[in-house]
Amino acid sequence: MDVAANPDAAPAFDLNDQASYDFFTEERLRFADVDRNGHINNVSFMVFIENARVTYITERLRRIQDAGLRFVIAHLDIDYRRQLHYPGVVRAACRLVEVRRSAFVLAHAVFDQQGLCAATGHAIGVCFDPETNKGRPIPEDVKAELSRHLPGGGAR
Amino acid sequence: MDVAANPDAAPAFDLNDQASYDFFTEERLRFADVDRNGHINNVSFMVFIENARVTYITERLRRIQDAGLRFVIAHLDIDYRRQLHYPGVVRAACRLVEVRRSAFVLAHAVFDQQGLCAATGHAIGVCFDPETNKGRPIPEDVKAELSRHLPGGGAR
Amino acid sequence: MDVAANPDAAPAFDLNDQASYDFFTEERLRFADVDRNGHINNVSFMVFIENARVTYITERLRRIQDAGLRFVIAHLDIDYRRQLHYPGVVRAACRLVEVRRSAFVLAHAVFDQQGLCAATGHAIGVCFDPETNKGRPIPEDVKAELSRHLPGGGAR
Amino acid sequence: MDVAANPDAAPAFDLNDQASYDFFTEERLRFADVDRNGHINNVSFMVFIENARVTYITERLRRIQDAGLRFVIAHLDIDYRRQLHYPGVVRAACRLVEVRRSAFVLAHAVFDQQGLCAATGHAIGVCFDPETNKGRPIPEDVKAELSRHLPGGGAR
Repeated sequence: MDVAANPDAAPAFDLNDQASYDFFTEERLRFADVDRNGHINNVSFMVFIENARVTYITERLRRIQDAGLRFVIAHLDIDYRRQLHYPGVVRAACRLVEVRRSAFVLAHAVFDQQGLCAATGHAIGVCFDPETNKGRPIPEDVKAELSRHLPGGGAR
Repeated sequence: MDVAANPDAAPAFDLNDQASYDFFTEERLRFADVDRNGHINNVSFMVFIENARVTYITERLRRIQDAGLRFVIAHLDIDYRRQLHYPGVVRAACRLVEVRRSAFVLAHAVFDQQGLCAATGHAIGVCFDPETNKGRPIPEDVKAELSRHLPGGGAR
Repeated sequence: MDVAANPDAAPAFDLNDQASYDFFTEERLRFADVDRNGHINNVSFMVFIENARVTYITERLRRIQDAGLRFVIAHLDIDYRRQLHYPGVVRAACRLVEVRRSAFVLAHAVFDQQGLCAATGHAIGVCFDPETNKGRPIPEDVKAELSRHLPGGGAR
Repeated sequence: MDVAANPDAAPAFDLNDQASYDFFTEERLRFADVDRNGHINNVSFMVFIENARVTYITERLRRIQDAGLRFVIAHLDIDYRRQLHYPGVVRAACRLVEVRRSAFVLAHAVFDQQGLCAATGHAIGVCFDPETNKGRPIPEDVKAELSRHLPGGGAR
């Protein structure tokens, strides 16, 4: 399929927009998240995002482990857009945005107490064969099922 | 006052009973709280308790800082009663249980997803004079106001 | 044996004295250990102590797991004596100080960059039977071997 | 200056090579860094990198704060290359690799107990005016001084 010829097939995904995501975890800020600068530490954002990712993969992308695939997180990136301040409850968002030959890409975001985007980013999970420790292609049927979770993919 | 002669003045305080507490924080378990043993790490219990304590002191015992008193946490103890397992939401409880000459004692507990007591303990805050770094007595009027938060003390 | 009649058998153990301990871990302070108050957070002390405890049990009290005993930490207490400030390297100390019927007691301390005692405390491990989840007595031969690590017990 | 015409001015910077860096912190792994999967958690890598970054900026890039510039970390990325296992001591590396109009880019890496590269990445600090909260250009003299820390820049 030629994406360029059919823009509807790959709808624009705005990382900053809550409406882009279909999965969220509530993250209650803790005093332990506050650093010397008096705001929520950069690393705590990664903790929120990790929690959303682990929960999302467990609840939505079960097909990966049901297929006996093992994966590691090979890449993370994050762009900080707003500070977060204690106390409060924020939301971490996660969504599958790409399925590659032997990897999958998740989009991430953190939204603050007012619903404003505080951070966005990506995580890449790479499937590997535990015996050889080499990358392992994702079978086509698993790919097809995972793809339903892509933006515009039809999954709940 | 002779406590022994007036048991009503010092009602039995059951650290394990949710009904003993008048302040709770909801603590959402995070993947980062899980340790190598697959359960919520011992230290995370202290993080939950710290969060409840900081919030309780800020919201209920404001009189301490309004009086210009500075304090440090000088002692913590905890008894673990049940394991906690990810994911879920637990409650951390806090209550003032004693006001001393220059210190105050808080009772603490953590209740699991089923409301069962997972841990209990105490924290002792000691007021000090930042100039001399020595203990500083809590003024009688502050003591009186704090005492309203003791079990049976009449505060909300 | 009557301890009272033979004080040499239970030498005074000064929790505050580095010389009381025979096991230490170096703990490099991290920016993530610093809290809103600009000093090393209370909970990080517990992290240092946990690290010393896990390492001590693995390296010195192997007899516990070699005997197939399973245990949980049932109690922790800590008395804070000095603040710690970032950056720097501190030492966490651990020593077995008591062996009970189905439990063992560890003494703990943290020493700051100048070797001054910043905190002391205890941890109690309780052995249990994983099948019944009930306390399980420590066999006499294991007790005897562990006791060599007590102050005055003769172990390295 | 035309970088393409003068490759020596921008020497190849290999993020994976310890020799590329001129600043390291030793990071002692803690039991608290281990996650459910039995290895050092992804987020702990960020904690090590943060510690190296804070120390590097304080010790080497003091000119930034001496000039009254305030900055925030606006971006982080990390590529994981090897797992880390407890216990042990690893090294976190940091080096200034680019100075932009109002931002600076740091390269990061983590090297394991054998000196093998476990992770690489970047952090971008953006200078801003605290009054307007807008980006603030780095003065030319500060840029010049910072540039001495670039690979090939001549600073120690």
